[in-house]
Amino acid sequence: MPQPPSLLVTSGLPAPLVARAVAEALAEDLGLAGDITTESTVLPDARAKAVLAARKAGVASGLAVAEAAFKALDSDVRFVAAVQDGAPLAPGTVLARIEGNARAVLTAERVALNYMGRMSGIATLTRAYVDRIAGTRASIVDTRKTTPGLRAFEKYAVRCGGGRNHRVGLFDAVLIKDNHIVAAGSLSGAVERARARAGHMLKIEVEVDTLVQLEEALRFDIDAVLLDNMSPAELKTAVAIVGKARAKGGRTVITEASGGVNLETVRAIAESGVDLISVGALTHSAPVLDLGLDFLA
Amino acid sequence: MPQPPSLLVTSGLPAPLVARAVAEALAEDLGLAGDITTESTVLPDARAKAVLAARKAGVASGLAVAEAAFKALDSDVRFVAAVQDGAPLAPGTVLARIEGNARAVLTAERVALNYMGRMSGIATLTRAYVDRIAGTRASIVDTRKTTPGLRAFEKYAVRCGGGRNHRVGLFDAVLIKDNHIVAAGSLSGAVERARARAGHMLKIEVEVDTLVQLEEALRFDIDAVLLDNMSPAELKTAVAIVGKARAKGGRTVITEASGGVNLETVRAIAESGVDLISVGALTHSAPVLDLGLDFLA
Amino acid sequence: MPQPPSLLVTSGLPAPLVARAVAEALAEDLGLAGDITTESTVLPDARAKAVLAARKAGVASGLAVAEAAFKALDSDVRFVAAVQDGAPLAPGTVLARIEGNARAVLTAERVALNYMGRMSGIATLTRAYVDRIAGTRASIVDTRKTTPGLRAFEKYAVRCGGGRNHRVGLFDAVLIKDNHIVAAGSLSGAVERARARAGHMLKIEVEVDTLVQLEEALRFDIDAVLLDNMSPAELKTAVAIVGKARAKGGRTVITEASGGVNLETVRAIAESGVDLISVGALTHSAPVLDLGLDFLA
Amino acid sequence: MPQPPSLLVTSGLPAPLVARAVAEALAEDLGLAGDITTESTVLPDARAKAVLAARKAGVASGLAVAEAAFKALDSDVRFVAAVQDGAPLAPGTVLARIEGNARAVLTAERVALNYMGRMSGIATLTRAYVDRIAGTRASIVDTRKTTPGLRAFEKYAVRCGGGRNHRVGLFDAVLIKDNHIVAAGSLSGAVERARARAGHMLKIEVEVDTLVQLEEALRFDIDAVLLDNMSPAELKTAVAIVGKARAKGGRTVITEASGGVNLETVRAIAESGVDLISVGALTHSAPVLDLGLDFLA
Amino acid sequence: MPQPPSLLVTSGLPAPLVARAVAEALAEDLGLAGDITTESTVLPDARAKAVLAARKAGVASGLAVAEAAFKALDSDVRFVAAVQDGAPLAPGTVLARIEGNARAVLTAERVALNYMGRMSGIATLTRAYVDRIAGTRASIVDTRKTTPGLRAFEKYAVRCGGGRNHRVGLFDAVLIKDNHIVAAGSLSGAVERARARAGHMLKIEVEVDTLVQLEEALRFDIDAVLLDNMSPAELKTAVAIVGKARAKGGRTVITEASGGVNLETVRAIAESGVDLISVGALTHSAPVLDLGLDFLA
Amino acid sequence: MPQPPSLLVTSGLPAPLVARAVAEALAEDLGLAGDITTESTVLPDARAKAVLAARKAGVASGLAVAEAAFKALDSDVRFVAAVQDGAPLAPGTVLARIEGNARAVLTAERVALNYMGRMSGIATLTRAYVDRIAGTRASIVDTRKTTPGLRAFEKYAVRCGGGRNHRVGLFDAVLIKDNHIVAAGSLSGAVERARARAGHMLKIEVEVDTLVQLEEALRFDIDAVLLDNMSPAELKTAVAIVGKARAKGGRTVITEASGGVNLETVRAIAESGVDLISVGALTHSAPVLDLGLDFLA
Repeated sequence: MPQPPSLLVTSGLPAPLVARAVAEALAEDLGLAGDITTESTVLPDARAKAVLAARKAGVASGLAVAEAAFKALDSDVRFVAAVQDGAPLAPGTVLARIEGNARAVLTAERVALNYMGRMSGIATLTRAYVDRIAGTRASIVDTRKTTPGLRAFEKYAVRCGGGRNHRVGLFDAVLIKDNHIVAAGSLSGAVERARARAGHMLKIEVEVDTLVQLEEALRFDIDAVLLDNMSPAELKTAVAIVGKARAKGGRTVITEASGGVNLETVRAIAESGVDLISVGALTHSAPVLDLGLDFLA
Repeated sequence: MPQPPSLLVTSGLPAPLVARAVAEALAEDLGLAGDITTESTVLPDARAKAVLAARKAGVASGLAVAEAAFKALDSDVRFVAAVQDGAPLAPGTVLARIEGNARAVLTAERVALNYMGRMSGIATLTRAYVDRIAGTRASIVDTRKTTPGLRAFEKYAVRCGGGRNHRVGLFDAVLIKDNHIVAAGSLSGAVERARARAGHMLKIEVEVDTLVQLEEALRFDIDAVLLDNMSPAELKTAVAIVGKARAKGGRTVITEASGGVNLETVRAIAESGVDLISVGALTHSAPVLDLGLDFLA
Repeated sequence: MPQPPSLLVTSGLPAPLVARAVAEALAEDLGLAGDITTESTVLPDARAKAVLAARKAGVASGLAVAEAAFKALDSDVRFVAAVQDGAPLAPGTVLARIEGNARAVLTAERVALNYMGRMSGIATLTRAYVDRIAGTRASIVDTRKTTPGLRAFEKYAVRCGGGRNHRVGLFDAVLIKDNHIVAAGSLSGAVERARARAGHMLKIEVEVDTLVQLEEALRFDIDAVLLDNMSPAELKTAVAIVGKARAKGGRTVITEASGGVNLETVRAIAESGVDLISVGALTHSAPVLDLGLDFLA
Repeated sequence: MPQPPSLLVTSGLPAPLVARAVAEALAEDLGLAGDITTESTVLPDARAKAVLAARKAGVASGLAVAEAAFKALDSDVRFVAAVQDGAPLAPGTVLARIEGNARAVLTAERVALNYMGRMSGIATLTRAYVDRIAGTRASIVDTRKTTPGLRAFEKYAVRCGGGRNHRVGLFDAVLIKDNHIVAAGSLSGAVERARARAGHMLKIEVEVDTLVQLEEALRFDIDAVLLDNMSPAELKTAVAIVGKARAKGGRTVITEASGGVNLETVRAIAESGVDLISVGALTHSAPVLDLGLDFLA
Repeated sequence: MPQPPSLLVTSGLPAPLVARAVAEALAEDLGLAGDITTESTVLPDARAKAVLAARKAGVASGLAVAEAAFKALDSDVRFVAAVQDGAPLAPGTVLARIEGNARAVLTAERVALNYMGRMSGIATLTRAYVDRIAGTRASIVDTRKTTPGLRAFEKYAVRCGGGRNHRVGLFDAVLIKDNHIVAAGSLSGAVERARARAGHMLKIEVEVDTLVQLEEALRFDIDAVLLDNMSPAELKTAVAIVGKARAKGGRTVITEASGGVNLETVRAIAESGVDLISVGALTHSAPVLDLGLDFLA
Repeated sequence: MPQPPSLLVTSGLPAPLVARAVAEALAEDLGLAGDITTESTVLPDARAKAVLAARKAGVASGLAVAEAAFKALDSDVRFVAAVQDGAPLAPGTVLARIEGNARAVLTAERVALNYMGRMSGIATLTRAYVDRIAGTRASIVDTRKTTPGLRAFEKYAVRCGGGRNHRVGLFDAVLIKDNHIVAAGSLSGAVERARARAGHMLKIEVEVDTLVQLEEALRFDIDAVLLDNMSPAELKTAVAIVGKARAKGGRTVITEASGGVNLETVRAIAESGVDLISVGALTHSAPVLDLGLDFLA
């Protein structure tokens, strides 16, 4: 039975990362003694066929990780994806068909589902936010409020749900907050030093809580402003202020709203005209999407 | 300033695990370039004082991990816990006071909060379930539906919330499900082989979907039954059947309910008389508890 | 030449563990410069055929590890097991046939033999104990006195020899010893707290040195007693005491003998009626089983 | 209480290796749930005093590893060695005094003992061989038949027992055996290529099974001969042949006997005049030395 | 003797990265047997005082790494930096004073020097380029042509020499080259998809080989252009074209020259008016700076 | 398309080392977000054909590492070497042909080139030294002045260039320098203890700065002398002194020159009659060899 090309080659997830993550997750579940239930009840050379299916509606994410989990225990497992990451799922939608050594399939099941359920949960919640602001100019972006060790997977899942990624870590963009400005003595000093340190390919964003701070920030060479905890009305004014600054000096500053964002408030925030709305809940509070593995007789 | 003894020595979390987890989470956030914002804005020898405080009500979990995160970047950080893991938190409750190199404190902040927020979220949700069934004989237990790589932390958080742990992984208990029985040919064969393989210190649980299956399972040398997706009425009958089996053969079989458990249904389930109620949502869908770090001038 | 399915898929050893262990053992033997002898003397594309054979009588254990060692250096090596783990071996018995790149086979030889020799040595010694108590109701069990880093392999080898596993580590069962009782203040407190902490799927064993301590221990909700350093006569009395306790309260408590067990004493201990006899020597003092690799012209 | 300097700084064991080994051994024993017995029974801030003592006579090895095990769980543990590695031990000899957090001491106990018991067992067996050949010119040396992952520790233990180390791995000396000569086509070719590849600081040893092979080997630029499975009489002749070769060509070739060496045969072998006697059993079959931790009230 | 605060807390190098790198480098040098020369010749408790000094003129980089190397073998080593990273060095300039256990200092010496020599070599070469273009508006930037595993250290060293960092890896900026445009079908498609994928905080640079390609590229929403292998005259024209585009559309596009840059050509290139000049040689071909450790009697 | 056998099986580089190194280098370049440029511009199932070619003249080294880099991202990549490591390269010489998934080839390109460029640069510089001393009896050898983490690769590259390896690390030979002799109290004590510690398969070299020290050193049982910083004339005298010592006592002591070696001085040094000339610059200051990947339409 010819093998389809592995999703790991083509997926946007770095392959060495997936391989290591899956090996560690399996080690966590297997301990030193292994899957004693399966070993006791399933013959070594038994075969299994199963389908990975959605139990609830949502958005798929993590098929390459699931494939890697099964193949880590039996490199000859046949894993055929029926949908792609990002696809909408109805209850019952088949995501993939799996066939291989029965022990391997049973033992890897939970690791595969734990990854995909969590990732699809994030994609699903992201999609809900994205849908809520359809027609506005805003995009939904994530934050650094991710699960330790899973940031690559969770940021990928946000993209699967139609969201965009904010900076990945402390290293790929500058985000100057209150505490930094206080420590630096002044915003101008903070921006200047950050500009020198960060390199020409990184952007600088400054968090502001008030319109006064915004006006101050716009006087410096920054790429984005984070408008924290402002009402939709304030946001609208802020966007206008940034627009005028553009008109004068040619500077194009990105506007980002954060704080107090939920599915009820997000539309009003988007209609203020901001470019981006960052939502910590995408990664820190998304419920899992209910997926299951059904074995075929 | 004398250092209080590290929580890592006394906490129930294995110290080598915490050290490794925190180092990897920091590496994830720092990448190769480090915290470019802090490096640009904070002087190398600046000092910081901060309090870790709850923004919402909940239950504390993970103080040792937070301590480890700060100390990983500055071994001289002073971290003084104000509450213990498991303590109830009101909005504003101070969890810990931190003092040390300002760069270290600012850079470790997010890793500390990502761990503690997630763990406290799990403890908080667990506590909600535990409170809901107060006065019944049932306990709330977790599942293997945990975040890959964080199982030790999440199972610990469940204990902080007053829940109890089900098996930790595939290795420390036998749980025979439908697929295993089918593969083994019969329940009797499955139980017998599991008994031989698992060793005398491990327990065997069998999942049953119907009362007929339950009667069948009770004929064998098992330690627990997982009553899956039964209504409270069915569960009550199941508990009675198990009780009669006890009366006859002296066997004390633990009863566990699973499936369809939420904060609305859990009380009725508990009142059926089961020993345990397992709740996947504790670890797979608990929202984060909102915590924050407040810097003192 | 078609490849037989890898033993790693079907063996009871967790595959990620074996892969990592073999890679580290090869790295230990190869250092930075590699196998300078083989590199100097064997042409890059030379082929080798060899048989893995027993030099002494014993019991096989570790074929999957040997396979993994050869395949780690040449994924195209053909490794065909001639016996299964647990099989009795006479001097000269062939365990496996290996064919592949000559450099890979020669270089991996020692790692394969170091694992299999040690594991088969443990299986062989275990089998000697098991044979010695044939016809009694007792089982031979191992301890935590294993080689650091090799516990999974050594506990597996005990099973290959017909023994059973005691707890794998500090995490999968409670074993309360003198020092714990002293620290806890009382046995009752120790048992109660352990019951709450350990979860319903873990068992609790209490070590007792005297029959008085035994009577005390049986008053609590425990699963097993470790009868330490008792004579066969004392053990017989202890078994009777446990039996009476059963009769009264319905509690079925497992009895385990430990201390002073060797091949001369084990039969008398087993005839006392205990359920289990734990033998540290299985893993801490088993001599290697002499195996060798014979190259075919 | 002032801390004595750590043995890790001064011991001959590479410190990074010890740190990593101890962390992994503790992780193996603690799993994800930790030491549930100790956590249930010992108060977080309880203190313990204990002595590490020999139960049987032998030779000490591994004190730095034991120290590292306790300190890995409580960096403030006070560990004071009473003897040095290599010291002779009588039953009851105290090796070290330990004082620290009671949980840390109890939890690390088994890892410390598993390392030290194994290492001291090897040192003890080595010492027995060394004593047996006292007064001869021969030295006892080890082999590559070590426990995977523990080679550094086991070779160190051999030195503690008065033995000397053969090559550490495949990388630090050339040892040409039959299979290599067959593959290379001729001994001359093998030696020549090995000389070029190995670098000027590595030595070349050739295994010979007969005196004819020995004469052949001595014609080439080698540093040592491994005289495999020869009787004491044959060895004596071999030593004489090597001596004559010395006389003629000025070459000083080291003679090493291997095969059939045990405590009964080793003296006769040594009296043949060989320089070295290699004994695989030192590392592959040494029984553990019985050590214990005694807690002080 | 009070310890000065560790450079690891304050340096711009991520501390977990340095700790891991140093541990691995020491393990590489120590192998399984350790520093057999030092162990044979230096008493365990001997003390050493030494100064780390420059033998040639250059720029310092890597003091925190050197400190970490010594402290990894003896946490009580006293390491006092006499200069800061980035400081100019004359032959004989003292960089740091070290005092501690003599074995630790001697054994860690080479690892400390290998890191600092390489890093200071890069800083020194960078400084030479930076000095050569003094007074122009251009900055010197590095590339991804770094030593595998050392990118964080080498990019840090470039900053110590007064250079700036280009993107750190494939992940923190988009750089579209010929092959990407061919694969994407068109530049417009490539830019558009990159804009969506990369997130708002990352920048997009496009490589162009000709002025025609430059005009094409400037029609799209890009942040920078890499002007590859152009002569100073072409670069001047290119800068003018970019300037006009600015004037029209308000877009500020960064110009970067690459290819054919060396110490002879760099000034003419800088005088073309480009913003950045990227130099692969900074990290792939910088000779080591000669540093040494002088022991004080 | 049938796959040629992997270079990893046959190359002199330890395969587990290469696999780990390549995985870490890719992880370094990919971060958490991966190759965002390639992901944005190249279709998942696009194919690529490319040739790895020299841009400058030199010596090849590292083909197995390049192969491993491409295969780590797509195990089905076809990598066919056109030359072997050690082959002389002219500008334009094709080293290998690569065909596979286009994303995998583009993403792995830089890691493959970073390894091969550096290794080939070392091989090229080594070859230059070797050629310069053609006809003399001396060999060129490397030092421990290697890049941290890359020693195995760099020492291999030296061999590819026709050089020989000095000791690999602190563990595989004794090299007694001034500081060691001072610490040991006397040279005789140092040599004696080193002889006992190091084992019979390791060699002992002593560094001498003067002819007086040389005469002293030759009185002891040493294998080699390092003649540090001597002029060609002094070296000639030193070689004669060593030769006379040979004549008298039969000892064959290897002579090694070090210090002040460069391409201008090396011939005169070699003509002094020394056996070895060690050159730190081989590994610490070799410029990269310019290699490139050319994509075929």
